[in-house]
Amino acid sequence: MSDPLKIGLIGFGNIGAGVVRTLDANREIIGARLPRPLELIAIADLDTKTRRDAPYDPAIVTSDAKGLIADPGIDVVIELVGGIEPAKTFVEAALNAGKHVVTANKALLAEHGPELLALAQANGVGLLFEAAIGGGIPIIRVMQQGTSANVIRSVQGIINGTCNYILTQMEERGAAFETVLAEAQAKGFAEPDPSLDIDGHDTQHKIAVLASLAFGMDIRAKDVWVEGIRAIQPIDIRLTRELGYGIKLLGIAKQAEADGPVEVRVHPTLVPGDSQIAAVHGVYNAIQIDADPLGPTLYYGQGAGPAATSSAVISDLMALAADVGGFNAARDARLPVRVGFKNLRPRDELQTHYYLRFQVADQPGTMARISQALADEDISIESMIQHKPEAPAAGGGSNANAGGPETGATITIVTHEAVEKRVRRCLANVAGMDFNLAEPFVLRVEE
Amino acid sequence: MSDPLKIGLIGFGNIGAGVVRTLDANREIIGARLPRPLELIAIADLDTKTRRDAPYDPAIVTSDAKGLIADPGIDVVIELVGGIEPAKTFVEAALNAGKHVVTANKALLAEHGPELLALAQANGVGLLFEAAIGGGIPIIRVMQQGTSANVIRSVQGIINGTCNYILTQMEERGAAFETVLAEAQAKGFAEPDPSLDIDGHDTQHKIAVLASLAFGMDIRAKDVWVEGIRAIQPIDIRLTRELGYGIKLLGIAKQAEADGPVEVRVHPTLVPGDSQIAAVHGVYNAIQIDADPLGPTLYYGQGAGPAATSSAVISDLMALAADVGGFNAARDARLPVRVGFKNLRPRDELQTHYYLRFQVADQPGTMARISQALADEDISIESMIQHKPEAPAAGGGSNANAGGPETGATITIVTHEAVEKRVRRCLANVAGMDFNLAEPFVLRVEE
Repeated sequence: MSDPLKIGLIGFGNIGAGVVRTLDANREIIGARLPRPLELIAIADLDTKTRRDAPYDPAIVTSDAKGLIADPGIDVVIELVGGIEPAKTFVEAALNAGKHVVTANKALLAEHGPELLALAQANGVGLLFEAAIGGGIPIIRVMQQGTSANVIRSVQGIINGTCNYILTQMEERGAAFETVLAEAQAKGFAEPDPSLDIDGHDTQHKIAVLASLAFGMDIRAKDVWVEGIRAIQPIDIRLTRELGYGIKLLGIAKQAEADGPVEVRVHPTLVPGDSQIAAVHGVYNAIQIDADPLGPTLYYGQGAGPAATSSAVISDLMALAADVGGFNAARDARLPVRVGFKNLRPRDELQTHYYLRFQVADQPGTMARISQALADEDISIESMIQHKPEAPAAGGGSNANAGGPETGATITIVTHEAVEKRVRRCLANVAGMDFNLAEPFVLRVEE
Repeated sequence: MSDPLKIGLIGFGNIGAGVVRTLDANREIIGARLPRPLELIAIADLDTKTRRDAPYDPAIVTSDAKGLIADPGIDVVIELVGGIEPAKTFVEAALNAGKHVVTANKALLAEHGPELLALAQANGVGLLFEAAIGGGIPIIRVMQQGTSANVIRSVQGIINGTCNYILTQMEERGAAFETVLAEAQAKGFAEPDPSLDIDGHDTQHKIAVLASLAFGMDIRAKDVWVEGIRAIQPIDIRLTRELGYGIKLLGIAKQAEADGPVEVRVHPTLVPGDSQIAAVHGVYNAIQIDADPLGPTLYYGQGAGPAATSSAVISDLMALAADVGGFNAARDARLPVRVGFKNLRPRDELQTHYYLRFQVADQPGTMARISQALADEDISIESMIQHKPEAPAAGGGSNANAGGPETGATITIVTHEAVEKRVRRCLANVAGMDFNLAEPFVLRVEE
């Protein structure tokens, strides 16, 4: 038995406590699978007093993260601080001190990942981040190793459990976004400041990292077009279901042609109601990869939480502990990112199907004017439904045009493939017409 | 750039040709991801004449597999011969010659895996088999690396595409097993001798390997209880759907308590109609792992075919090529199997829910006698439906007891959890009663 792999943990919150619990609970089986034991010898956190729900010796807890990093007895630093600073300073210092780093920090990777990976390589150590995306789903190893022989055509999925929980609740109960968000906050499924999740930024960070791995490009958070889920109304849930779709917040990264431009985006997306991705409910995550020659594959599991995340963090520790021949950068930093290189499709040139919802006064000629606005931009209609506003779900009447009182109507259109800039121009055009009772609303569709 | 990894391929059938095609088509991206190139320098097959649909130099094709294995210029042997012999002799010879082996041969692994893995370790080389299970789904890496920190509670799934294709067709079209099998054979989705697939033996091989990895035990094909899909009738598809289930051929390996006995079985299984696994259609595979602390995860993709399988074979080659520090057996043979150790739950002691179908003469007292036979074995009823035989699907009448002509009836019962040996004793008891128009039929349920 070789020397133990000695570990220092920075950031002793929920996830950190989960890592400590799993290291203890599964000590025997982890040991049996490794040529040397894992040994947690130091924990740094600003709060050294609060007793965490985990078996640890309070004497190893310090507020001195820099001291922990400098300790020559430590081989690996786990960074669970989150956010950019001081996490970035800690990670750089650890790499420069010749220590491996295991992190769950997607924001840091999405902002500074390529430089940090290069710094790790320059120091001959590893920067491992299985826990940063998809919680316990081993999606990073799937991309670095499992699909290594493939040209990736797309990677996309549900990678924020909070949004999926909210959308699932809206779908199952017909509840309003604000109601479900407040409940989720009360239950601890959503943060007091929910913006990182519901405005799509967490998904933005994660899809930037996945896109970089998939296409070998230097894709950062700022390269990702983002829309969150705040604007989705119960009526959209009902109408999309009636049209045969579900709504999911997806991170999407695609390269339509080999060596062509890549599109990376985050937005609420209509997905076919009978698809695997539509069947992902609650806080679960699922990531689809379409690759050549592999074809489509899907990876599903718990995308967050201390238990699932600890599985990913410790799998990284075990990869390092098993690598008794010295860290193999060529292997673990597979799918190299070409720093500074990117080839992105401008947002305006996106081509997809669109879901358009118009709330209009119920007056003659409205449909004709909307249809003409679509035709003017070469947008053709795949399906359409018209309801009185606040019509009941599927099965409700669709006779709002049939001469009733002038209470308004909801016109919903799914288009054939159209060009983003033309769709937006069309919507701006319609928004200026006199019959609108609300701003025209658009969502995108992935068939 | 280091020296190339030199490869010899034995077995130049469909899969072999797929590997050659992918190595060529994705040469550029594979090269960019590796510190040294992959170079295929020899191919052995008894048929050296037939031109395969792949870009290769006919001069490298030989009928002399032993010569290929002995060639000191070859680093890795890909074994795609299939079956036990001569594949076993080839693999042993290659390992003893100090060459890595990459294989897709689940039968060989299920019969002789532990000895071959030990032989690889003794020779300081790797025996990699990502392609043996789940086609292109990287399930072996998921088990060896992705879930390495976990206690595995169960691994189960759809791991034979032919059976899933047949069951999907029966479900979608209401067609008989024999009809769909004949069509599948005509289309090349099923072999002329279909027994390996439809009698469950291919699934048996694969679940034995997965069970060994999951529980670190020496579980062989002969340890797996197997039932195939031949006996399933259209009426079972209809009735199970009416009860809210789908029917899938599952390989199932479970350890209910840590260190407790493991059950490993293959049989057609009722799965909840709204589960992810029920939504796996056609030739697709899906494997579910339930683990602590990870929770449930699912891995979905194409389980067979030259394209998907080539992705897995080449991912193994790339793992070897990236491992520039020498092969790291501790890492790639993770989750070691304890040769000779197994702790299996006897089939008789299985506890699960059961689907029971009785075709009976429609005479007074039949239901009472069946109910009593169940009660005698302490088996309680969760749900029951009774139809005239060949009743139409959901919505059909269930009034066969209502005094109609004595044409017989179908009684279908789903039980609460019961013990296998008692269920079988009950069925033997009922089978001896005078009202049976057909042998009582049983399937098992996974909730």
